[in-house]
Amino acid sequence: MDSTVPSSRDKPLFTPGPLTTSRTVKLAMLRDLGSRDAEFIDTIHRVRNRLLSLAGLSKEQGYESVLMQGSGTFTIESVISSTISAEGKLLAIVNGAYGDRIVTIARRHGIETVVVRSRENELPDIGEVEQTLNRDPSIEMVATVHCETTSGIINPISEIGQLVHGSGRRYFVDSMSAFGAVPFDFEACKIDYLVSSANKCIEGVPGFGFCICRREALESTEGWARTLSLDLLAQWRGLESNGQFRFTPPTHTILAFDQALKELEAEGGIEGRRNRYRQNYETLILGMSEMGFDEYVPQELRGYIITSFRYPKDERFDFTEFYQRLSDNGFVIYPGKVTGADCFRIGNIGRIFPSDVKALLHTIRDTLMDMAVKLPVTSS
Amino acid sequence: MDSTVPSSRDKPLFTPGPLTTSRTVKLAMLRDLGSRDAEFIDTIHRVRNRLLSLAGLSKEQGYESVLMQGSGTFTIESVISSTISAEGKLLAIVNGAYGDRIVTIARRHGIETVVVRSRENELPDIGEVEQTLNRDPSIEMVATVHCETTSGIINPISEIGQLVHGSGRRYFVDSMSAFGAVPFDFEACKIDYLVSSANKCIEGVPGFGFCICRREALESTEGWARTLSLDLLAQWRGLESNGQFRFTPPTHTILAFDQALKELEAEGGIEGRRNRYRQNYETLILGMSEMGFDEYVPQELRGYIITSFRYPKDERFDFTEFYQRLSDNGFVIYPGKVTGADCFRIGNIGRIFPSDVKALLHTIRDTLMDMAVKLPVTSS
Repeated sequence: MDSTVPSSRDKPLFTPGPLTTSRTVKLAMLRDLGSRDAEFIDTIHRVRNRLLSLAGLSKEQGYESVLMQGSGTFTIESVISSTISAEGKLLAIVNGAYGDRIVTIARRHGIETVVVRSRENELPDIGEVEQTLNRDPSIEMVATVHCETTSGIINPISEIGQLVHGSGRRYFVDSMSAFGAVPFDFEACKIDYLVSSANKCIEGVPGFGFCICRREALESTEGWARTLSLDLLAQWRGLESNGQFRFTPPTHTILAFDQALKELEAEGGIEGRRNRYRQNYETLILGMSEMGFDEYVPQELRGYIITSFRYPKDERFDFTEFYQRLSDNGFVIYPGKVTGADCFRIGNIGRIFPSDVKALLHTIRDTLMDMAVKLPVTSS
Repeated sequence: MDSTVPSSRDKPLFTPGPLTTSRTVKLAMLRDLGSRDAEFIDTIHRVRNRLLSLAGLSKEQGYESVLMQGSGTFTIESVISSTISAEGKLLAIVNGAYGDRIVTIARRHGIETVVVRSRENELPDIGEVEQTLNRDPSIEMVATVHCETTSGIINPISEIGQLVHGSGRRYFVDSMSAFGAVPFDFEACKIDYLVSSANKCIEGVPGFGFCICRREALESTEGWARTLSLDLLAQWRGLESNGQFRFTPPTHTILAFDQALKELEAEGGIEGRRNRYRQNYETLILGMSEMGFDEYVPQELRGYIITSFRYPKDERFDFTEFYQRLSDNGFVIYPGKVTGADCFRIGNIGRIFPSDVKALLHTIRDTLMDMAVKLPVTSS
């Protein structure tokens, strides 16, 4: 029977997700547990507690974790559509597509949204955030993106948090692609709601997201949820009352996540994972700059999660062909998403190691040579 | 390494889901595919086409299938919140908790909802549906539940469909626990939108749902979606434009579903699966009635998907204890959900066979004897 087990390793994914996961994480899915089964309820309980610990928090300190079915965007929409009152406004700090997505979600729900926008390779203007908060007392919540996966820029979540907290507003951080590998002090950042998903730095498989939040903030949202499925307060109350999801949980995905959390701990937690991702990143940047590639985001603003590289100026460079040739040779990278420049992206997260990055770099060099792109490249 | 593979078979689940799935369905998850990978896009394409074929439909006939992340309820909410105009009313035909859930969803979105209600072990009053439709021209859509998992009753979706179609309204069928094992003529039933999920009769693992719908109906819903994540029209357009989900897909769950669809076909499609489920059901009913159990729904209205049994009157019967003892002995049944009577439920769906049902029956008998419940039981 085990000859039917597919190869343990598909093409490594240098993407923002779905990511490469360990074989043992996937093996954890070879079970069928009932959603009311004691073993499964224990798993949910353990996962929720581990998420809090990972954030350096506990229930005793007044924090909670809530799991929500769907992709990460579903959990983002869960927070936005559940935690702002009918009259409340949102202030969204935007320097990329994921900031814009928050705006789209809020406006879809009829939530008036004020935007403080900066370029995709620049940090937000904190002064403008402050002025906007001072000017408009009906702003209830401020939303920002931790690592903008659009570009790879890391936003100053602590500085923004101090400001938001000082102004008495709620603070929401989309930490989708950063949580679990970028250390920060949750309490010091004054975060009320943070969202990430199973399939980012924790290296589970996709299928659900989670929100880590301040209980007092969450409890104040009674009656505000605009949907049933994505009702954050109801989902939390369901989990607290009997340990179960309100609606069918993705049982297999949660078993994989439980295993992924164990493996994160075994790697040394957030610090250990950061070290590997940073090695991936440094290996990547060195190799890419040797080939002449330019990064879109200035070095001091870049994270080590995902990097946007400008296209080579050489007209023989065609991204679709480049992508396909890399894929045919066993490496999956990602198209760009910034609006201001022609870029592609290479992710450093998931179950990939510096040796994988080196193999990718060799293949990129060979591919460019096959495409007759002049090396070193000159960026467009 | 393969010693780390968990046992291929957990306790069989006699529930409405999550269900027992085949080992080969689970093994299909031991891969990490990128969401833009050609192989994964092919898989989505194949799955969407197979769902249409399973419904006896094709794109040429004007039908579409849309996959949506989350549990089945998320896809129900996707339809309700995306396909009724701001002024439109919903008529919900309710004889159980899943009908009520549709009402809850609609009202949460501010959709005025008229309810035609019948008892949980009775069919809807078609005359009342007709009168209500005639009386209120602002009703845009009629919703009903195919197999009410609350009780196991099968509602007359064809008769209702004729009426709804004749009155020029849209028709939505929640066929969550029936689709894939209960044959019906989709076109003759005049269905505009039908929803089921990966983890019911098709025997995939939980993580997404799907909607099979008439393209013309769907295309008329421009601008009506009240959420971003659950926007049905946008999700369909995304899938059509590049074969991809708009937001991270549950890749592993979709690979499992692709395998599950192959296994459904190998079992003889809907007819083959129906035969096995009906054998499970008949084995169950025979054994339970030998022990004196009474079904809540009259025989002629019952499906073979899930059955509600009344509690024994004997005061030594305690459901929590009964459930736990069965679980300890390796069998997972399900609590009741009807409001009108004390019942528990036993499901016949998932990768379970008459031999499993017989083993369950033996264990039920032994458990009742251990609990000193007098046999045959007298129902309460």
